[in-house]
Amino acid sequence: LNKVFADLPVTIFEAMSQAARDNNAINLGQGFPDDPGPEDIRRAAADASLNGYNQYPSMMGIPELRQAIATHYGHWHGLELDPMSEVMVTSGGTEALTSAILSVVQPGDEVVCFQPVYDSYLPIIRQAGGIPRLVRLEPPGWRLNEDMLKSVFNSKTKAVLFNNPLNPSAVVYPREDLELLARYCQEFDVIAICDEVWEHVTFDEHKHIPLITIPGMRERTIKVGSAGKIFSLTGWKIGFVCAAPPLLRVAAKVHQFLTFTTAPNLQAAVAYGLGKPDEYFLSMRKDLTRSRDRLTRGLESLGFPVLKSQGTYFLTVDLSPLGLNESDAEFCWRIVKDYKVAAIPVSAFYEQDPVTSVVRFCFAKKDQTLDTALERLSDAI
Amino acid sequence: LNKVFADLPVTIFEAMSQAARDNNAINLGQGFPDDPGPEDIRRAAADASLNGYNQYPSMMGIPELRQAIATHYGHWHGLELDPMSEVMVTSGGTEALTSAILSVVQPGDEVVCFQPVYDSYLPIIRQAGGIPRLVRLEPPGWRLNEDMLKSVFNSKTKAVLFNNPLNPSAVVYPREDLELLARYCQEFDVIAICDEVWEHVTFDEHKHIPLITIPGMRERTIKVGSAGKIFSLTGWKIGFVCAAPPLLRVAAKVHQFLTFTTAPNLQAAVAYGLGKPDEYFLSMRKDLTRSRDRLTRGLESLGFPVLKSQGTYFLTVDLSPLGLNESDAEFCWRIVKDYKVAAIPVSAFYEQDPVTSVVRFCFAKKDQTLDTALERLSDAI
Ligand SMILES: CSCCC(=O)C(=O)O
Ligand SMILES: CSCCC(=O)C(=O)O
Repeated sequence: LNKVFADLPVTIFEAMSQAARDNNAINLGQGFPDDPGPEDIRRAAADASLNGYNQYPSMMGIPELRQAIATHYGHWHGLELDPMSEVMVTSGGTEALTSAILSVVQPGDEVVCFQPVYDSYLPIIRQAGGIPRLVRLEPPGWRLNEDMLKSVFNSKTKAVLFNNPLNPSAVVYPREDLELLARYCQEFDVIAICDEVWEHVTFDEHKHIPLITIPGMRERTIKVGSAGKIFSLTGWKIGFVCAAPPLLRVAAKVHQFLTFTTAPNLQAAVAYGLGKPDEYFLSMRKDLTRSRDRLTRGLESLGFPVLKSQGTYFLTVDLSPLGLNESDAEFCWRIVKDYKVAAIPVSAFYEQDPVTSVVRFCFAKKDQTLDTALERLSDAI
Repeated sequence: LNKVFADLPVTIFEAMSQAARDNNAINLGQGFPDDPGPEDIRRAAADASLNGYNQYPSMMGIPELRQAIATHYGHWHGLELDPMSEVMVTSGGTEALTSAILSVVQPGDEVVCFQPVYDSYLPIIRQAGGIPRLVRLEPPGWRLNEDMLKSVFNSKTKAVLFNNPLNPSAVVYPREDLELLARYCQEFDVIAICDEVWEHVTFDEHKHIPLITIPGMRERTIKVGSAGKIFSLTGWKIGFVCAAPPLLRVAAKVHQFLTFTTAPNLQAAVAYGLGKPDEYFLSMRKDLTRSRDRLTRGLESLGFPVLKSQGTYFLTVDLSPLGLNESDAEFCWRIVKDYKVAAIPVSAFYEQDPVTSVVRFCFAKKDQTLDTALERLSDAI
């Protein structure tokens, strides 16, 4: 069987969620909220299931959703997209990323990735025959610098995969880092595949800047988004790819043979959701900021050194000052069993030279859930 | 960009559906019904959207659906499947096939395919570095024979892709052909990837026999199914992969990075649907038999030589006795423009040495739709 896949472990998110179920633990591992998601959007899906269209839609997505995506990014970022030639709907952010990678990468191409790296990137790059070139980011800032880029960009570099806001590190990259990356992409004629699924989940003064809006990047960036993340309906698996027509055209050819198309009833509900007023998105951020602060304060009061979260559903804790004599992975497997709380070891996001002292907790949960988890963790360290 | 995909045409189904929209034509091309699909199943989806779980389900599918799939195949075919280790839910039959192909095929492997060949197979085989070995099937019977298999199976053959019931030819293969294929798979130690998405859509005395139930095939067959086809809800994109644990385990590793998982609200509705009594499936077949017969009679009375459909939503017409001096593709592009009826040229399913005289019509439509199409076609030949 195919060696690229045969020996891969089950993704850490699935493995830890399974451990949470097996141990009856509170699941602060995999990133999903424990409320049912916005009722009006779920009602729109119910309505479309009963009264809407449930047969094959256009493989690129229903026109209303493609228009809603273009309008949404125009409104939020001044990004002008032609809905017909520059927007595609996929079956989730994962399929969007895989379509983008397979459309660009050919055998022998080098692809720059940043560790911590989301676990779907490297196997798909390898499936395409590409060679990952890994940059190692480090706590507490996880910032880019020129030396890092200099060491990996070269004439064989075909693409860079960049995740911003960065899961699991909860960093929202400032313009300075994006401009640095953009400069290297242009100098080496590289395509940027940008995993921006967490774009709406940002806190405090941190605002997400799409890489595609940095000067010089409009024609060389494939932007990936996710309605599951924007609307806290992670199961729906509705993603988006936005890119200039020559790039999108090829990503669409991959998409047509990965899934072909995506449920039109759920697409209709997402189109409705994207039209919601700004206040909706801002109040979602406010609610998540409250949850972040609740878990941050709680963990800090238990003695955990928390690295402040700038975005995503996650915050991280750096165990190193605690002198625990165990790795992040050992810590996580211990607490899910002994304290009934699941979390994700950040080392799982490294293929080489892992950072082994950082643990990720998901705070997109009810107060009650967070409080119970904190109680359970009260003597974990 | 990736040469495997960059130069591919848009799939004929999408292209012809677009032409149907552009020309205001009746779309008897792409295979989908023009009714909204079973109301109770759509109601179950609406209910799950409002009151059920809408966050990440297990990447393998919700347990209720995996159990329902196992029970369904046990009941219909005496096929015993362990729902936890032998059943996976995917985002449609296309993703199921792509997961299966990418899990098995490695660079240099030969893969036997039968023309007419569904258009996702060859690009994905090539993406995996595999080498398609094409068998040419022919009207009117489209049957397999030993000479065909002898000419393509060899020690480099890793897999065979087999579609039964066969789209576009509307053949349901008899046990004899399956046993012949099974013998070659065993003799050359080959994995069979079986696209059986049309399994429930069979007519008259023709019954679908899953290849996995042929002696010797249980451990070497990856069976692909589709709820969209079983329940005439083609947009929902819920597929299944069933295989022995060593095969399924690797297909799951691919799936986790193609889409990761599939909307749980729609999965719940499909689980409900699979539990429907036999009469539901039998009456669906009866309704489609009526539609097949209506379109068959209508086309015959206009002088079209119809090849009798044994299964699928489709019937085919062989233009060759008509002496039209145009190919199937020319015929299809002419009638969508001049007669406002879309159909699919079967030559689009051949990469080499196409059969160029056969046209596929979808009859999964309301009587009124079929009658209007027939009226429009009354002087097309
Ligand atoms: C696809 S499961 C992982 C979900 C997620 O983004 C995370 O938990 O990091
Ligand atoms: C995925 S679009 C094609 C649908 C279908 O099975 C067909 O029309 O043959």
